[in-house]
Amino acid sequence: MEKFEPDMRLTRNAHLIANLGLCQLRLVDDSRWAWLTLVPQRPDISEVFELTPLDQTMLTFETNLVASALKGVTRCTKINVAAIGNIVRQLHVHVVARNEGDANWPNPIWGHGDAHPYTEEARKRLVETLMKALHA
Amino acid sequence: MEKFEPDMRLTRNAHLIANLGLCQLRLVDDSRWAWLTLVPQRPDISEVFELTPLDQTMLTFETNLVASALKGVTRCTKINVAAIGNIVRQLHVHVVARNEGDANWPNPIWGHGDAHPYTEEARKRLVETLMKALHA
Repeated sequence: MEKFEPDMRLTRNAHLIANLGLCQLRLVDDSRWAWLTLVPQRPDISEVFELTPLDQTMLTFETNLVASALKGVTRCTKINVAAIGNIVRQLHVHVVARNEGDANWPNPIWGHGDAHPYTEEARKRLVETLMKALHA
Repeated sequence: MEKFEPDMRLTRNAHLIANLGLCQLRLVDDSRWAWLTLVPQRPDISEVFELTPLDQTMLTFETNLVASALKGVTRCTKINVAAIGNIVRQLHVHVVARNEGDANWPNPIWGHGDAHPYTEEARKRLVETLMKALHA
């Protein structure tokens, strides 16, 4: 079995903020939305159904844990969850906090415009709040 | 507990093709992509994490069963799976077969252009093939 290595395009603009049981949890450096990605640490997987049944269940558990924490922290209107991967094929799940009137609302965020990076302070504050919510 | 009733906007342009254990399985009447929706038959739920843990696991199982069958039938490049719901809040999961060069590739399909309805014959053929794959 090959070793898991995250695709560079999933790490370049996304800060690793936690290592869950199965997934790396990353914050995408785009302050237009609170946007997290979960990257299952398994090599050569591009579709959720290619994971083992146990890993599928773990992914569901971790995704919903993160989604629920993100909703609690941001008090957003709606959480968007998606595994798309048309460009980066390595399996990754997006969890995004959406609000009425945000960039591209009510349409999806993927492929829309250019990222607005966080200030270091704003990013650290969001990560800290999120980590507290995840450990609650 | 209230009774489950699917939102009219999830039924109007989407044919019911099967009743899985938890979800209604529907084919969206848009031939630009093979596009299915799973609607968990639970009232008053808009986020996956609001389902019970058992229902979350069932939803994962049914979603991946459908995604795997859709991939097998269409031999598409990539399956896109998403729970968005910015417009229709009743929980529903999209499972879409994407191919390089399809309408709006590699961006998401939601909110893009106008539907191209199937001919009745093309729709029946797709549903039949899908149902065979689901029962295999």
